[in-house]
Amino acid sequence: MAELKSFVEVHPDSHFPIQNLPYGVFKPQPSSSPRPGVAIGDYVLDLSEIASAGLFDGPLLRNSDSFLQPNLNKFVSLGRPAWKEARATLQKLLSATEPTLRDNKELRQKALVPLSSAELLLPVVVGDYTDFFTSLHHTKNCGLIFRGPQTPVLDNWYRLPIAYHGRASSVVISGTDIVRPRGQAHPSCGSTPYFGPSLKLDFELEMATIVGPGNELGKPVDINNAEDHIFGLVLMNDWSARDIQAWEYIPLGPFLGKSFGTTISPWIVTLEALEPFASQAPKQDPPPLPYLTEKVSKSYDISLEAHIKPAGHEDSGVVTRTNLNHLYWTLTQQLAHHTINGCNLRPGDLLGTGTVSGPEPESRGCLLELTWNGQNAVSVNGLNRKFLEDGDEVIITGYCKVTINHDFEYLFCGMLLSFQFLMTKFLSLQFLNCSN
Amino acid sequence: MAELKSFVEVHPDSHFPIQNLPYGVFKPQPSSSPRPGVAIGDYVLDLSEIASAGLFDGPLLRNSDSFLQPNLNKFVSLGRPAWKEARATLQKLLSATEPTLRDNKELRQKALVPLSSAELLLPVVVGDYTDFFTSLHHTKNCGLIFRGPQTPVLDNWYRLPIAYHGRASSVVISGTDIVRPRGQAHPSCGSTPYFGPSLKLDFELEMATIVGPGNELGKPVDINNAEDHIFGLVLMNDWSARDIQAWEYIPLGPFLGKSFGTTISPWIVTLEALEPFASQAPKQDPPPLPYLTEKVSKSYDISLEAHIKPAGHEDSGVVTRTNLNHLYWTLTQQLAHHTINGCNLRPGDLLGTGTVSGPEPESRGCLLELTWNGQNAVSVNGLNRKFLEDGDEVIITGYCKVTINHDFEYLFCGMLLSFQFLMTKFLSLQFLNCSN
Repeated sequence: MAELKSFVEVHPDSHFPIQNLPYGVFKPQPSSSPRPGVAIGDYVLDLSEIASAGLFDGPLLRNSDSFLQPNLNKFVSLGRPAWKEARATLQKLLSATEPTLRDNKELRQKALVPLSSAELLLPVVVGDYTDFFTSLHHTKNCGLIFRGPQTPVLDNWYRLPIAYHGRASSVVISGTDIVRPRGQAHPSCGSTPYFGPSLKLDFELEMATIVGPGNELGKPVDINNAEDHIFGLVLMNDWSARDIQAWEYIPLGPFLGKSFGTTISPWIVTLEALEPFASQAPKQDPPPLPYLTEKVSKSYDISLEAHIKPAGHEDSGVVTRTNLNHLYWTLTQQLAHHTINGCNLRPGDLLGTGTVSGPEPESRGCLLELTWNGQNAVSVNGLNRKFLEDGDEVIITGYCKVTINHDFEYLFCGMLLSFQFLMTKFLSLQFLNCSN
Repeated sequence: MAELKSFVEVHPDSHFPIQNLPYGVFKPQPSSSPRPGVAIGDYVLDLSEIASAGLFDGPLLRNSDSFLQPNLNKFVSLGRPAWKEARATLQKLLSATEPTLRDNKELRQKALVPLSSAELLLPVVVGDYTDFFTSLHHTKNCGLIFRGPQTPVLDNWYRLPIAYHGRASSVVISGTDIVRPRGQAHPSCGSTPYFGPSLKLDFELEMATIVGPGNELGKPVDINNAEDHIFGLVLMNDWSARDIQAWEYIPLGPFLGKSFGTTISPWIVTLEALEPFASQAPKQDPPPLPYLTEKVSKSYDISLEAHIKPAGHEDSGVVTRTNLNHLYWTLTQQLAHHTINGCNLRPGDLLGTGTVSGPEPESRGCLLELTWNGQNAVSVNGLNRKFLEDGDEVIITGYCKVTINHDFEYLFCGMLLSFQFLMTKFLSLQFLNCSN
């Protein structure tokens, strides 16, 4: 396999090689209108310019205005054939051997915008946001912490991908400040609940599906067609106030403990780009019911990390390293289950995986688990953390690597192909004084 | 007080007198574009025609395009001063003594559309839908049924208005068929869950707030300003599959047991129209925390009924009679609590009250309570019902009545002023054979 290369310079460490081409929405200038783009090296390619120049010349996108929209909802609604056509067009246009864009200086200057000067926006309008609970390790740890050792994982968990409806209005793009929420928590002495700023603010390292075409109300998606409804994946931080959550969640589930903010990465990595990193999903025991039994049970080998950068510090410290392939329920099972009752998914809907925790203590995906609800502290650049402090920045990254053995001429010459979902978040300094 | 009368004929039994003027969205013809309207007698007044004729001549709406939109989101975002101005303009235009519209035959013919020929649509785009759990009687009954007599009502319930995020995509307008959902339920024998059409399909009689301007992320709404964020109320049926719900809801709350459909009435009755029916809200013990303590604690005296009309029957039978003023937590407390963590509400958001059950057995707002989870049956036109059957139509109505004692000339001449939220829903005939 000859390696596909772009005429756009891509540093070997870049997470945006021509094999990735993640989709986002951006403004080239503060006064510009939002438009779709793909990341390539240190640039974002303005798809509205490519469309206006008539370069989407395949049969499905030739007359489409889907890249002249302020978000990606229309494009993701078109489905896999259009997504494949767009990817083929863009990989050809950006390749080192294709002169159309490479040799058109005027178009290149309009269409290739330095990432450093682009303002990144939410890539889609999220109609509904759902959050699943699909890591067995996370589920078990939460069960042990909140309910004790009797039944940390309930019977229903092994039978269906448990989930709750989240709040769509407070889904924000990476970089948006999050204000420490106020709320009620369990009474500590006497019978009056605590009220004030949350004292147990946490992150949750997650990924999330961006839904493609979706389905009509009353018409479930078949498990073996579910992949065609997944446009791609983003990183997600499901900010959680553990004290608010613990007091409010029985019997109707998480509400204000979660709805003060959910951050997603600006770039959606497509399933086409992720295909080389597909892996076999874990065996499920008991076997799933027929409506959740799939011909191919696929996961993705995506390395995930969370770092914390305390206020005033130059460097961040890693607090967890995990992998998407630790999840028990697959992305396609999540999506098919969501629709089995007839619930309609719409283009751009967001389906979080839930916290991605692995089996080792150091692969737990949130502070609740890492510090066992504040009993222990984790070390971050020499500081102790039980929960997040004001000014902490949480950085979540995801990347895929593959080592390709070339033919005998390049024997054992490993090529690192990686790309990254980068998410940086800031905690605001409001409520600096957290004492009651 | 002289009684305000319209030049539009309004039958004494009509629920749309000039005192009501509920807002909706409709198409005059199947090929027309959707536009806002208010109901008056047997007509809907086309607000796009009134706006185009320049008759919204107050300072706030004179140059506004808020009635030239396909939904009410822009209008509800404008806030109470604009709502009051619109109401004053419309009550003047429609009054018997005002010639502007009354004597303009051409405009009248364009702007007054017979309700019988109008197609009613969802009045707002619902960004997020939240459902509360604010009837003590409903909460107690559900606790007794699902958890037993020890603690039917948990401590947190008296401290905060419990709620969960619902599914916005499946909110539909009255008249939309609902397909019986399929899903998993508790294993009945052996360890494999039941899978198939829900065997415990239920309605929930609710009302819901339509949110007005809303708030920015991170900036809670003060309890004493919360009323200014409530545009009006609709009737709501929170269709529920009790078997799916019971199996899935621990620990993250209701999901597929609810998300297959939520029906709202086409007409939003404004808080201005409801003001004569305001009543003192029930005393709360323990007293609410300061952020939930309001200067005026208001409920509304709205009579609510649910009827079932079995397939093939001419008549419906009443199954419950209740009243909005049975709710423990007020609408303003619900709204303020929702934002205390900084969660942002957007114009058009839907906040359900939860099932409105009263203290008497016959005022319970859903079949789960009325039949005690299927242990008893209710009689509907001589038929027994434990849960809903295919083809059943659920009709929910709400109305307000006030008796005004006029001055001595009209001593004891009571005037019945009533208006109605009418909701008719059909269950589709899919999955007629419900046996496993």
